Amino acid sequence: MKKVVLAADLGGTNLRIAAVDETGQLLRLVKKPIPSEVSPRNLMEQIGEMAEECCLPEVAAKRSFSAVAFTAPAPVAKDFDGVLTKLPNIPSLVGMNLKAELEKLFDLPVTIENDATAAGIGENWIGASKGIENAICVTLGTGIGGGIIVNGEPIRGKDGIGGEVGHICVEPEGFSCGCGSHGCVEQYASATALVRSARDRGMRIETAKDVYDAFKAGNGMADAVFRSMGRHLGIMLAGLVNALNPEMLVICGGVTQGWDAFASHTEAEIRNRAYAVGAERAKLVRGLLGDNAGIIGAARSAFLSMK
Amino acid sequence: MKKVVLAADLGGTNLRIAAVDETGQLLRLVKKPIPSEVSPRNLMEQIGEMAEECCLPEVAAKRSFSAVAFTAPAPVAKDFDGVLTKLPNIPSLVGMNLKAELEKLFDLPVTIENDATAAGIGENWIGASKGIENAICVTLGTGIGGGIIVNGEPIRGKDGIGGEVGHICVEPEGFSCGCGSHGCVEQYASATALVRSARDRGMRIETAKDVYDAFKAGNGMADAVFRSMGRHLGIMLAGLVNALNPEMLVICGGVTQGWDAFASHTEAEIRNRAYAVGAERAKLVRGLLGDNAGIIGAARSAFLSMK
Repeated sequence: MKKVVLAADLGGTNLRIAAVDETGQLLRLVKKPIPSEVSPRNLMEQIGEMAEECCLPEVAAKRSFSAVAFTAPAPVAKDFDGVLTKLPNIPSLVGMNLKAELEKLFDLPVTIENDATAAGIGENWIGASKGIENAICVTLGTGIGGGIIVNGEPIRGKDGIGGEVGHICVEPEGFSCGCGSHGCVEQYASATALVRSARDRGMRIETAKDVYDAFKAGNGMADAVFRSMGRHLGIMLAGLVNALNPEMLVICGGVTQGWDAFASHTEAEIRNRAYAVGAERAKLVRGLLGDNAGIIGAARSAFLSMK
Repeated sequence: MKKVVLAADLGGTNLRIAAVDETGQLLRLVKKPIPSEVSPRNLMEQIGEMAEECCLPEVAAKRSFSAVAFTAPAPVAKDFDGVLTKLPNIPSLVGMNLKAELEKLFDLPVTIENDATAAGIGENWIGASKGIENAICVTLGTGIGGGIIVNGEPIRGKDGIGGEVGHICVEPEGFSCGCGSHGCVEQYASATALVRSARDRGMRIETAKDVYDAFKAGNGMADAVFRSMGRHLGIMLAGLVNALNPEMLVICGGVTQGWDAFASHTEAEIRNRAYAVGAERAKLVRGLLGDNAGIIGAARSAFLSMK
């Protein structure tokens, strides 16, 4: 019988739980909002209920899962002990020993990954960079995250904050960033940045989608917004191309819906800045797994840890 | 009997050949200038002669070496076939199959590494970052090179240009760089950059050492030169700290002679820019192996390839 893991993706607003098989297929997926300031106890109850909904005929009961895979927007180092130390979007869970709680609830081995790292692992397993030894996955959403694969292994870093490419500087004297620095690429190439950049140009828009709609309608200001956004993303990626010489740059997240508005500017900036051989090598592509990249990547880590 | 490798470091002006044992000790070292536009044939003759001088009582003849280790300022990928494709400082050797020539001359296994990568490996073996799993080694000389160790492995990249941290952008609209980009950190934190920066401020100096002497004599302009240099190095390193979350940043090369003039500014910039936990983790230190880091690192790679 094929092994199946119970994989969960804890985001700032939703909890998603899925049954994932050894080929990365989602056999069932349940998604529910989590209350703001959710307590550890309520979270565990919700996980338990949603896990029941994920039970499949072929895995009869939750004990038939081989393992639990979890991804959260928190630092996860190689020697991670399971305690959530930093969780900007869900502060009510800080201090919780997620690993211990999951082990108690399911009586199964538990693997936890950072969400952006998991997305990189997922895309590297069955997505855009499938099987590629050196790939950088950048998620452009409200903020910017990254999952870096080098020599076939994810870079977690000593404290589990490896891959935080959203806070690489692209304008030394630029906008202040929530991380405490200024000029971070997150301030220039996230959905949030698109909205600010458009408003700064006098556009009356609400969302990044509005900017894209204006771009599609031929609005020159919207074009300038995406040009600047794409260029700053390219400055950051060119640096990583020189440092890591990857074969692929995978761009994920909601902002990729504006791909035709920015990708060519990003490519041009990488070509203008990175070593020619590196720029030519690093193919810029969109992620293939959408919102499921993280949950699939977490499942992959769980399967690997069983071997 | 202890194994000993014959290790060579080919630079732009000198060839250095050493007998290196399994603990990284240099048992004998010979250094000679190489003629500009040296031909492959002359290079091999010179290597052969210098190898004879490196023969030790305990390794009687050159055939007693266990392997040959070589480092050169050229791209070396994991699947490197031995042909020097890009060698900006020694163009007369481009196209030479260095690996095949060395195998023919010595009838021994041959390992080749990029020079900056080898320096990173050397410092990680017996130097400043000894045994550390995630470390970034930056060599500040005429230019800037880098050797990155992640998860205990050097990052060579698909085309062997991994670690080219000298061409990470720190000023989007900054000085033009020989690499074709502009605003690269090499234009702000190398020995060459120190001289230009000092002259741009009106100082009448010839070398980076002169700027440092002026700093030591209390010259305010020299202080400003090093402050700017240290700050730009810090911008670049802060980005790598966020991306890779390393435990140590090892600074090597001639410019480290001015350590007390710039290191505190570099540290401050990393603290101001990188995630707090990452900035605190990444200890900024000077390399311990000096000019021998590369030759020792090349030897390390040769020993590892024997296992």
